[in-house]
Amino acid sequence: MSNPPLPVTSRYSPTTAVRVGVLGAGVVGSQVIRLMTEHADELAARVGAKLELVGVAVRRPARHPEIPADLLTTDAAGLVARGDIDVVVEVIGGIEPTKELLLTALRRGAGVVTANKALLAEHGPELYQAADAAGADLYFEAAVAGAIPLIRPLRESLAGDRISRIMGIVNGTTNYILSAMSNSGLGYPEALAEATRLGYAEADPSADVDGFDAAAKAAILASIGFHTRVGAACVHREGIADVSAADIAAARQIGCTVKLLAICERVAVGGTGSPGDGAGEPGSEAVSARVHPVMIPQSHPLAVVDGAYNAVYVEAEAAGRLMFYGPGAGGAPTASAVLGDLVAVARNKIAGGRGPRESAYAALPVQPMGDVLSRYHISLDVDDRAGVLAAVATAFADAGVSISTVRQEGRGDDATLVVVTHSAPDAALAGTVAHLAELDSVHRVTSVMRVMGELR
Amino acid sequence: MSNPPLPVTSRYSPTTAVRVGVLGAGVVGSQVIRLMTEHADELAARVGAKLELVGVAVRRPARHPEIPADLLTTDAAGLVARGDIDVVVEVIGGIEPTKELLLTALRRGAGVVTANKALLAEHGPELYQAADAAGADLYFEAAVAGAIPLIRPLRESLAGDRISRIMGIVNGTTNYILSAMSNSGLGYPEALAEATRLGYAEADPSADVDGFDAAAKAAILASIGFHTRVGAACVHREGIADVSAADIAAARQIGCTVKLLAICERVAVGGTGSPGDGAGEPGSEAVSARVHPVMIPQSHPLAVVDGAYNAVYVEAEAAGRLMFYGPGAGGAPTASAVLGDLVAVARNKIAGGRGPRESAYAALPVQPMGDVLSRYHISLDVDDRAGVLAAVATAFADAGVSISTVRQEGRGDDATLVVVTHSAPDAALAGTVAHLAELDSVHRVTSVMRVMGELR
Repeated sequence: MSNPPLPVTSRYSPTTAVRVGVLGAGVVGSQVIRLMTEHADELAARVGAKLELVGVAVRRPARHPEIPADLLTTDAAGLVARGDIDVVVEVIGGIEPTKELLLTALRRGAGVVTANKALLAEHGPELYQAADAAGADLYFEAAVAGAIPLIRPLRESLAGDRISRIMGIVNGTTNYILSAMSNSGLGYPEALAEATRLGYAEADPSADVDGFDAAAKAAILASIGFHTRVGAACVHREGIADVSAADIAAARQIGCTVKLLAICERVAVGGTGSPGDGAGEPGSEAVSARVHPVMIPQSHPLAVVDGAYNAVYVEAEAAGRLMFYGPGAGGAPTASAVLGDLVAVARNKIAGGRGPRESAYAALPVQPMGDVLSRYHISLDVDDRAGVLAAVATAFADAGVSISTVRQEGRGDDATLVVVTHSAPDAALAGTVAHLAELDSVHRVTSVMRVMGELR
Repeated sequence: MSNPPLPVTSRYSPTTAVRVGVLGAGVVGSQVIRLMTEHADELAARVGAKLELVGVAVRRPARHPEIPADLLTTDAAGLVARGDIDVVVEVIGGIEPTKELLLTALRRGAGVVTANKALLAEHGPELYQAADAAGADLYFEAAVAGAIPLIRPLRESLAGDRISRIMGIVNGTTNYILSAMSNSGLGYPEALAEATRLGYAEADPSADVDGFDAAAKAAILASIGFHTRVGAACVHREGIADVSAADIAAARQIGCTVKLLAICERVAVGGTGSPGDGAGEPGSEAVSARVHPVMIPQSHPLAVVDGAYNAVYVEAEAAGRLMFYGPGAGGAPTASAVLGDLVAVARNKIAGGRGPRESAYAALPVQPMGDVLSRYHISLDVDDRAGVLAAVATAFADAGVSISTVRQEGRGDDATLVVVTHSAPDAALAGTVAHLAELDSVHRVTSVMRVMGELR
């Protein structure tokens, strides 16, 4: 039961210190500061030097009595410019002035640890370039899926593999709302209200429910996974505001559940002439990055991820199918990811070396959403008379969309047609739905949603 | 839809190369060599230099026609000693001569990437020391849970957090057998025979079914997670050979499933006088590392991990509960993990810096299994007469073990008592079971197994 006899080599030199400045002391920042303080000895042992908190930039110092007053400053620009700060931790969010603050830090060689997904998705390359020019580290594990190690596995563990798909639940607010709709039968407005009341949704929920947050994360994941710059503007984005109780019920009917997924794929666009192949050279590839609600089979590992949890599913050529699961947000989980990065940057400061730089050599084009191959689930209220199915089937055939299954339910005024298509270009499917809505025999298109995975 | 305009900074200098020697060209090694060859350009772009395969040591060169003959050698000792080799990839397994080969490579400053769990679990500190003395890298992502990124998340992503528990299905063979027993009602011998026939179990299955493989992985996970040297000999180990169809049925009765888990915990051993506190100073901690079959609730994320898949559940103070899931073995998945490490070591060779070294500063004692707090599920065939329950209850009470639930089933000769205990020191529980077996009113102890998680 005793440990092996070899002496433990200690790297902890109590005379050296890595000096850290923190921007922001809100939900995440306060946890970062707490952990740095409470775990100071352990962090020092792991880094090989003390992590010394030398400044915290906040808007209102009076609100932070738990932080020593001499560390607090309202001058964020002054803090990042201080030549004695080795690492800047950024947890204030926003694009400006945050971008300039981080560029200032990187340009003078300070390492940067940030949780700022929006900034990275929009201005990642500029930050990377500043980091490269100065030989500085840029780490951002906390920007995607909170505490779940994802950036490091993608850009390091899988660096010898070819990732083909990254698909994940990366926004806890929308997952909470969809779970509530699914579990309790609530409509979207009621589920949103409950999420707001319980603190899972912001007063202005747009960044979450309209998919902006997930799209920024998709941009980061696609960029890293496919060694290609994918900005947030390149990500097709649909939120959950249009998901109805009818959609949830329709999903259940086919053994599925509705999730808002960020989907990043490496796709072949070699011009074989088939629909959806796009205009690429034969054998060429593109990247698809999109955020939209999807029906997935209840047996899929992502289907059981409920509430505010996040999970990301990664498919790689050699590794096969991997899944990463955990708390996607919250002060302490996000702080855990920030601290892991801080230890890495500090180790590099002490031991030499740098973390991975930008890897964008593949420079694949981004596939337009209209070319993405999708399967659709469509429910239609229809006339209960001969010829309706023929009219509907003709609308699909005219667009070159092949039908996988059709189910007719009810009679008379309650007649419903449920169609699941085979894969077809998204534009052709969207066009077909528009066409169907105009048919005389179709009263109403009650549910349209993309489907992934094998249906039972 | 276009990419941002900044130029991509390429680090790829085609004139530099990182020279790689591979020990072994079996199931994993052949995939490593295939991926290095097929993805040479991508790997070069990611590393910033070409990965050049300069030698492969095998026993029988004639068996490897796919490898250029001038790369093959039977002289492994000569290969690792070559001064022109920057990184040695070891996928031959075994303790000797592998240990000496890797020590030779490390001592002359070559980086080492290994998938050898047994070697690391037994001689990790010696390898680390040789690496430290020469400033060399030692990476071993592939040693635990195949393609699943786990070592890197534990020693890097969670480096700023305090891990409290690591619990996982880390052996695909035993998980396949237990899944088969659970899904088809097979007994252990039949399920093992099926696993052998399908190639999931070796001809000599002892390393898997007796828990040696999982124990080596538990030792590695506990060492990294708790910054403490935990050798394989410190891991309490029970295999699955004694798991019966009755155990599986009993688990189902209480809403559970049986899994062979590697469990590593940081536990308080402060001497409050309570049972199981052990002899530690007040407030002191220990590490528990063990491998044994467990009943876990069917709602637990690990319960649904079926077949040859692996999954590891990590609880950390700030991050909360994380789970990592994927293929735990196989040539290509293991090769993916090896390649990820190879890219990391090669990047360090090019850009400077080193990966994490051994972190064993915490040096916690290993808790003896008898002190580990467990809950037991026990089924007894008993006499159907007054006084039996009193006799059984007295046996528990005498050992200071508190009963959570008792259920009596059947009448007459088929009378069965099913007891689930509260947490108690494992030694007290084992003693109680021995005592029960000796009671006149107990015909037979039909099932004894530890239980984790909340029962319904």
